[in-house]
Amino acid sequence: MPLTNLPYLDRLLGDEAVSRHLGLEADLAAMLRFEVALARAEASAGMLDAGTAEEIARKAEGFIPDADRMAVATLKDGVPAPNYVQQLRERVGGDAAAKVHFGATTQDVVDTALALKLEPVFALFEERLAAIDNAFADLLARFGDTPLMARSRMQAAIEITSGARITVWRKSVSRVALELAEQRRQMMILSLAGAAGTAEKFGDRIDAVRETMAAELGLAVPDYVPHADRGRIAAFAGFLSRLTGALGKFGQDVALMVQNGIDQMAVSGGGGSSAMPHKHNPVRAEILVTLARYNATQLSAIHHALVHEQERSGTAWTLEWLVLPQMIEATGTALNHALSLLTSVERIGDPA
Amino acid sequence: MPLTNLPYLDRLLGDEAVSRHLGLEADLAAMLRFEVALARAEASAGMLDAGTAEEIARKAEGFIPDADRMAVATLKDGVPAPNYVQQLRERVGGDAAAKVHFGATTQDVVDTALALKLEPVFALFEERLAAIDNAFADLLARFGDTPLMARSRMQAAIEITSGARITVWRKSVSRVALELAEQRRQMMILSLAGAAGTAEKFGDRIDAVRETMAAELGLAVPDYVPHADRGRIAAFAGFLSRLTGALGKFGQDVALMVQNGIDQMAVSGGGGSSAMPHKHNPVRAEILVTLARYNATQLSAIHHALVHEQERSGTAWTLEWLVLPQMIEATGTALNHALSLLTSVERIGDPA
Amino acid sequence: MPLTNLPYLDRLLGDEAVSRHLGLEADLAAMLRFEVALARAEASAGMLDAGTAEEIARKAEGFIPDADRMAVATLKDGVPAPNYVQQLRERVGGDAAAKVHFGATTQDVVDTALALKLEPVFALFEERLAAIDNAFADLLARFGDTPLMARSRMQAAIEITSGARITVWRKSVSRVALELAEQRRQMMILSLAGAAGTAEKFGDRIDAVRETMAAELGLAVPDYVPHADRGRIAAFAGFLSRLTGALGKFGQDVALMVQNGIDQMAVSGGGGSSAMPHKHNPVRAEILVTLARYNATQLSAIHHALVHEQERSGTAWTLEWLVLPQMIEATGTALNHALSLLTSVERIGDPA
Amino acid sequence: MPLTNLPYLDRLLGDEAVSRHLGLEADLAAMLRFEVALARAEASAGMLDAGTAEEIARKAEGFIPDADRMAVATLKDGVPAPNYVQQLRERVGGDAAAKVHFGATTQDVVDTALALKLEPVFALFEERLAAIDNAFADLLARFGDTPLMARSRMQAAIEITSGARITVWRKSVSRVALELAEQRRQMMILSLAGAAGTAEKFGDRIDAVRETMAAELGLAVPDYVPHADRGRIAAFAGFLSRLTGALGKFGQDVALMVQNGIDQMAVSGGGGSSAMPHKHNPVRAEILVTLARYNATQLSAIHHALVHEQERSGTAWTLEWLVLPQMIEATGTALNHALSLLTSVERIGDPA
Repeated sequence: MPLTNLPYLDRLLGDEAVSRHLGLEADLAAMLRFEVALARAEASAGMLDAGTAEEIARKAEGFIPDADRMAVATLKDGVPAPNYVQQLRERVGGDAAAKVHFGATTQDVVDTALALKLEPVFALFEERLAAIDNAFADLLARFGDTPLMARSRMQAAIEITSGARITVWRKSVSRVALELAEQRRQMMILSLAGAAGTAEKFGDRIDAVRETMAAELGLAVPDYVPHADRGRIAAFAGFLSRLTGALGKFGQDVALMVQNGIDQMAVSGGGGSSAMPHKHNPVRAEILVTLARYNATQLSAIHHALVHEQERSGTAWTLEWLVLPQMIEATGTALNHALSLLTSVERIGDPA
Repeated sequence: MPLTNLPYLDRLLGDEAVSRHLGLEADLAAMLRFEVALARAEASAGMLDAGTAEEIARKAEGFIPDADRMAVATLKDGVPAPNYVQQLRERVGGDAAAKVHFGATTQDVVDTALALKLEPVFALFEERLAAIDNAFADLLARFGDTPLMARSRMQAAIEITSGARITVWRKSVSRVALELAEQRRQMMILSLAGAAGTAEKFGDRIDAVRETMAAELGLAVPDYVPHADRGRIAAFAGFLSRLTGALGKFGQDVALMVQNGIDQMAVSGGGGSSAMPHKHNPVRAEILVTLARYNATQLSAIHHALVHEQERSGTAWTLEWLVLPQMIEATGTALNHALSLLTSVERIGDPA
Repeated sequence: MPLTNLPYLDRLLGDEAVSRHLGLEADLAAMLRFEVALARAEASAGMLDAGTAEEIARKAEGFIPDADRMAVATLKDGVPAPNYVQQLRERVGGDAAAKVHFGATTQDVVDTALALKLEPVFALFEERLAAIDNAFADLLARFGDTPLMARSRMQAAIEITSGARITVWRKSVSRVALELAEQRRQMMILSLAGAAGTAEKFGDRIDAVRETMAAELGLAVPDYVPHADRGRIAAFAGFLSRLTGALGKFGQDVALMVQNGIDQMAVSGGGGSSAMPHKHNPVRAEILVTLARYNATQLSAIHHALVHEQERSGTAWTLEWLVLPQMIEATGTALNHALSLLTSVERIGDPA
Repeated sequence: MPLTNLPYLDRLLGDEAVSRHLGLEADLAAMLRFEVALARAEASAGMLDAGTAEEIARKAEGFIPDADRMAVATLKDGVPAPNYVQQLRERVGGDAAAKVHFGATTQDVVDTALALKLEPVFALFEERLAAIDNAFADLLARFGDTPLMARSRMQAAIEITSGARITVWRKSVSRVALELAEQRRQMMILSLAGAAGTAEKFGDRIDAVRETMAAELGLAVPDYVPHADRGRIAAFAGFLSRLTGALGKFGQDVALMVQNGIDQMAVSGGGGSSAMPHKHNPVRAEILVTLARYNATQLSAIHHALVHEQERSGTAWTLEWLVLPQMIEATGTALNHALSLLTSVERIGDPA
């Protein structure tokens, strides 16, 4: 992304894989997939001839727009698609040029590209969540029976087992993880509705075009025009924040457990200090708390963006761009740190 | 509740029914139901004799604790249950007194009471959502075919029908409403896990006690100890905010449509001004936007409260109390205003 | 207020004094002071005859509007003033009735009433802040020299003195406290600008009316029309949240220091548990953290309300009503808890 | 920075100048200035000999650490300074190496570097604010007297002049701008306090070192150890958000005024649409609203970070890094857009 402007923080506060899946190259590739699939689906529905669609597909291959032109135009237009389409049309040339993007609007290509970019992110998160669950199971096997002084309101309560606490950590995460498939289902949709959501250029061919295009792209066709209903975005952001929240609870507990004087947990690989080389800081655990609070904050912006006026809001939609990719990368970062932290645990349980 | 401290705002910014369902009387009744059901379930599991349980039930009937004592003690304890239980034990008296609340902890009674209080709220919201959906259907029938100039980025786009816009409003709300049953299922759970979540006073009778008690209270038994996993609270709060967000989008559109000079909609009963008697302000529409932004903000606090340390957090749990009931009442208020607004629509569509 | 709907939480999560200063009685009294001072100032500027002004003042004395009528009308109007003024006019009666509220608008009376209600709140906060500073000084005198293991990233760092930590607590609070006078200056202003901010009913007498009225009410005359510029509200809310934030840092430190096993601090009067009578919970310290996070969240709503459209926003202004009084009471509550906590300290410093 | 991961959005949602002032090159230069000034100040206070200090200064010149090493180490340490100092020591070599960073801690260098990086940002903001004020003055001169229908609650109120509305815009911004000097004063401070805030390696030379070093760097010496008191950061963030909030109010008004059908304003250079070439979207105005809501959200995170535990919080401090630079760049972006928007105004006032 990164989440900060200082590259030396990228490993601490970034997720290289997510950053790549949401980065420029992936974004341009997703926009291109949209435009090519649109042309082909329109051809298959008889809206343009097959030769034209194939010409668009062939000439579009490997298309990368001029970055400066696009940035300048996006400043003026507020959205990237007008200039992107313009450049793509120049590349395609001839009579076919005018058929590029036919019937579609900016929000169709940008929102669909988001779905396409999320595909590998969902796969990645699924994988990491499985690994985290395994790592919690491993902790349970290793330390489930060690005695642990429970704490309520930060004070010693009664003796429990480490297993009781580990199970809460595990369940807190796995219950959110269970929703991943549903979130994927809701997010992986085709947006194709034209300037004002009425697909006015498609006539009665819109259903056919949507079906063909969605199948080609591995997306579903929603039963409504989603341009101005951002509820699925808000639900997805809530899922992300509940995930980082569950990981943040785990991180907070670890940071409390490894305190000198409490010593309920030992973790390898703690961080050093420029002034105190003896220290052993629970950095990954702390960052989990940071990322939980980060997402808890960002989520609010996504919910404000639900007030998305009329057929398309410039203000609310743009706000999503400033927040959602960051929340996704923060979640990826938290998953990575959680897994590293879990695999670095050397002991859980009260000190002897 | 109210959401403000000024009673003259109660009808504008409050929901009398929700306020009652979450108010003191309902709260004390729910706590009492918990304690009585606990005693009976323990008796049925052989943890105390049936006579004692019935004595508790009989003497507890109609119990209302002394309010001042409870407020003073809650200031000291941070939670209401210790003093509530103390007063209930005094009322029950004799040998049975010691058996009141046996094996339970504050969070068991407070969290279970929340579930019990939510039961009529879910019913109410379900009813209102159905009425809102009907009202949208009615608008569709009346104005679905009138021409309407679509607006993107607040500027005139292309001509659509009012039906296209009404459908987005309706779908935005009904898609969230579809989750109501699942939210209810997740929230309507019994919390019974004792001081540190291990039900240490119950031994192998805990499953039986939970089953009996949950059946008595109309709740489900969760497959985990939910004390420190607040994910379901965060999911519920997200549901509320997505609901008010969808209604806020509707309200924002109405406020824009009734602008003098735009005149895409006419609504009866607009508000007056102390300085300009001729005005016709779209008050309910505006309040929908206000409540959407209110919940979008509060949601952040609930997500911060996911960082709930160890077996019980004093800080994070208390934060929920300051925010969740308010979000619920704000949602109830928004549902009311939306319904009133819908039934006051006189015209949708471009001016002749 | 209260901050919750459960009276047994009022002492834990409320501030009776602030609640009273911002409550209905104080609010109605402030509105009445506005209307009477307006009539008199208009008389002194020759806009109405002195007899009429005195008649208004005399008949208005002790005026309390009918609560139900006002609530019903406020639901319709979105603001309380139209009905309040209507009822006041009925009370005044005769020819004078029409002169009540002459030239003013709802926002004039509501915003000015806010300033009037804040006057005793500022005095209260000033007093409490002085007492807190004294209490910190007392802690410094008693425990300034005791050795204390510093902690960075929650891990033992190097030995310092308790005085070093106490000084950071004290300075963090007192630096915010220093701004109190400036905040008071900015908030204690008269709003008198009429329907659209142009004081169109006053002609060239507006300056004289404002000067007289402000002097009468102990307020300043701003050099601009503040109806739609909510910057001073946002600055005040930021001040409140920085204050509760500084107190929250103190509370978080205390909660960490009194942990069993850390034992860097002893505090009398900890809270009990319904399940574990031996416990000694740092309730007031925890609530300071809760209130810090509460205000940190609410502040966001106040800043969203800066987007206050045109001459008066129904949506943004109403959002303030749902958040600002609550922030003020939360701050009052935090000041109270901080002072109690400070005076209950029995020891600071590493255990022997 | 950028605020997003898509370079084609950089001009729309980024500020190249601010991005550079807060970017890696500026950051490393600021850290280096800190380390060199520290060595020299220590020499001037007799803590190390002048030759060593000059050797450090000479060898450090132009030092750029290996980026990969630093990123890997920062992941482990949670902070950049340990590895940065390590690499700088390797570069300096010999006996002088051990004297690099003597007595300082990570937070000293990172927080002081923030102050140094902000210096040109304050200058830039001051300049832009002056230009914006001039542009508002110019609008007043050109359109101050044109008639304008005021709007309250989005409905036509009474006729005012454009000047009345322009003055509120101008004042809303200029009142925040007045605080710039005070914000600069509070932020431009030296942090030099060592591992736990007690400057334990300096003994009684700490005052002299601080004075010399601060003078060299153009910073002030605070009268307290600011490591764990983040109140000035929160105040600065509040200033930024009040500034973008005031600009957001202006942007929202413009977006409403240029609506087709309202037509109270004409602005050149509106944005185009990929589907509707005839459109003229008020992009810059909308983005001002977006950035206001963005900062209103981020501010909450900065206030949560006030709960900065003990002598240094890993969680709270890191949260600042994810939010504060972004808020600064968002503010820079908003200032740019506001100025462009102001200079593109062709007409204000009701249509003829």
